[in-house]
Amino acid sequence: MNYPNGKRSSISLPTGIKKKKQPDFSNRGMTLEEDISATNDYYRTHDIAVIHKKPTPVQIVKVDYPKRSAAVIKEGYFKQASTTDFNGIYKGQYVDFEAKETKNKTSFPLSNIHQHQIDHMKAIHHHGGICFMIMRFTPHDETYFISAKKLFHWWDEQYNGGRKSIPYSFIKRNGYLIPFHYQARVDYIKILDKLFF
Amino acid sequence: MNYPNGKRSSISLPTGIKKKKQPDFSNRGMTLEEDISATNDYYRTHDIAVIHKKPTPVQIVKVDYPKRSAAVIKEGYFKQASTTDFNGIYKGQYVDFEAKETKNKTSFPLSNIHQHQIDHMKAIHHHGGICFMIMRFTPHDETYFISAKKLFHWWDEQYNGGRKSIPYSFIKRNGYLIPFHYQARVDYIKILDKLFF
Repeated sequence: MNYPNGKRSSISLPTGIKKKKQPDFSNRGMTLEEDISATNDYYRTHDIAVIHKKPTPVQIVKVDYPKRSAAVIKEGYFKQASTTDFNGIYKGQYVDFEAKETKNKTSFPLSNIHQHQIDHMKAIHHHGGICFMIMRFTPHDETYFISAKKLFHWWDEQYNGGRKSIPYSFIKRNGYLIPFHYQARVDYIKILDKLFF
Repeated sequence: MNYPNGKRSSISLPTGIKKKKQPDFSNRGMTLEEDISATNDYYRTHDIAVIHKKPTPVQIVKVDYPKRSAAVIKEGYFKQASTTDFNGIYKGQYVDFEAKETKNKTSFPLSNIHQHQIDHMKAIHHHGGICFMIMRFTPHDETYFISAKKLFHWWDEQYNGGRKSIPYSFIKRNGYLIPFHYQARVDYIKILDKLFF
């Protein structure tokens, strides 16, 4: 877990677990996704906003139906998400965002995002939704809000000979540092209030 | 598939398939969910609205990582959805709905819906989103739009000694028959336009 002083506790892996096959928990607290889900729970239980993470898309191939017990998925595959991870409503407005963390110190690699996610965000933006991205630079322990429009710029530029990553310095200047609160761990609504309401 | 005259082709099951374990395709065309997904595709490709079905929530228990191929889910279970199936944006407004079909001729059984879905719909309604339900009575081959508010009334009443189902006659009088179009098969946006825009 994260402590209010910003330090993270280290969780050691059980012995015998192959590190390569496991998410990397070394010297890390909750993932960005977990932090945002906890934040959304807080928003929901305090009647601030209703924002959910969409379930991971799975292609189900084989299901067993054992007698007197629940159906068991015996073969399935992870599918690439066709939209962003989070959406919902805040102050009557449609809100839609993607969240990604990087271990990179100096830039955010655009390979973390997919073309259809950008297409989805562009459609949302076009239809008047509030659309953005939350980026965490784990080496800096900083989490930023960056508007979809600024993201589109870098995304499109990479196909015009531009770079394949967004410099950390750009995010620092043009994004908004998201405050950490003990309950609303990634309190992005603070930023929405500043920008849209 | 559905034909413009409203008749459905019958799809026969391959012999040897245990009917009990399979979805019932007898004398039926596309499911309501498939019809709505096709409708959403049409809305999206024609830049009318951006509305998606959320992936089915799966509790993943065991994953294999074969060499040189994709991760395989070897054990998983279906989880109950904590929200509705569909959400998105139309004309700048947050839209959220659940879709269910029944084989019942005279009423829609409330057991088709879960308490947390109602809780979610109430929260959306409270935050100013457009929230409703799409119900199909397969014996009548009719699909209705019913506002969340009217659904809440029947839902809450069942715990005050009310009935456990909504009469078909009530839906017919208080819901809105959703027109069938060849491309927008369940053209619910026609109803939204009438009621909200």
